[in-house]
Amino acid sequence: MILEAAYLSVRPEATEDFERDFALAAPIISSMDGYRWHQLQRCHEVPNRYLLLVGWDSIESHTVGFRGSPDYARWRDLLHHHYDPFPTVEHFVRVHP
Amino acid sequence: MILEAAYLSVRPEATEDFERDFALAAPIISSMDGYRWHQLQRCHEVPNRYLLLVGWDSIESHTVGFRGSPDYARWRDLLHHHYDPFPTVEHFVRVHP
Repeated sequence: MILEAAYLSVRPEATEDFERDFALAAPIISSMDGYRWHQLQRCHEVPNRYLLLVGWDSIESHTVGFRGSPDYARWRDLLHHHYDPFPTVEHFVRVHP
Repeated sequence: MILEAAYLSVRPEATEDFERDFALAAPIISSMDGYRWHQLQRCHEVPNRYLLLVGWDSIESHTVGFRGSPDYARWRDLLHHHYDPFPTVEHFVRVHP
């Protein structure tokens, strides 16, 4: 299992819109081959900061399958305009436990 | 449930030592009141970067209970010297799903 993780900095005035649009976008990612689960977490200390965690079968499920899918354009259109700056997305492998 | 999350930047030459010391330190955190689970995840793109995720009953379980416990000094002594720079730790609440 691969963990995709990204801190999302959302424009402060747009957090309600972002959460609404994320709920609309979630079925796009969760229908992808190799998708396992996701969580959108909101920061307690910095309320316009979020942590997106997505479990995938492999890195390619995310970078090739999802980003190369026809439906990715809709995900991008729903969500990317809320970010400032645009987030860095990384992949992680569990080492403990 | 509260998620504690921290990106850990470990000195590049110390990743093996860090992972060994983390395994020694893990029983300290997992014995705390309010601890639920933890994962140490290693970054695929930047191998000296880690993501520590800890589930707690409340923020205070972490910030008061754990950090105020007598055993916290041993956690700190095992791990903090591996970090450069010292990490920012934040708390998150799940908003989706």
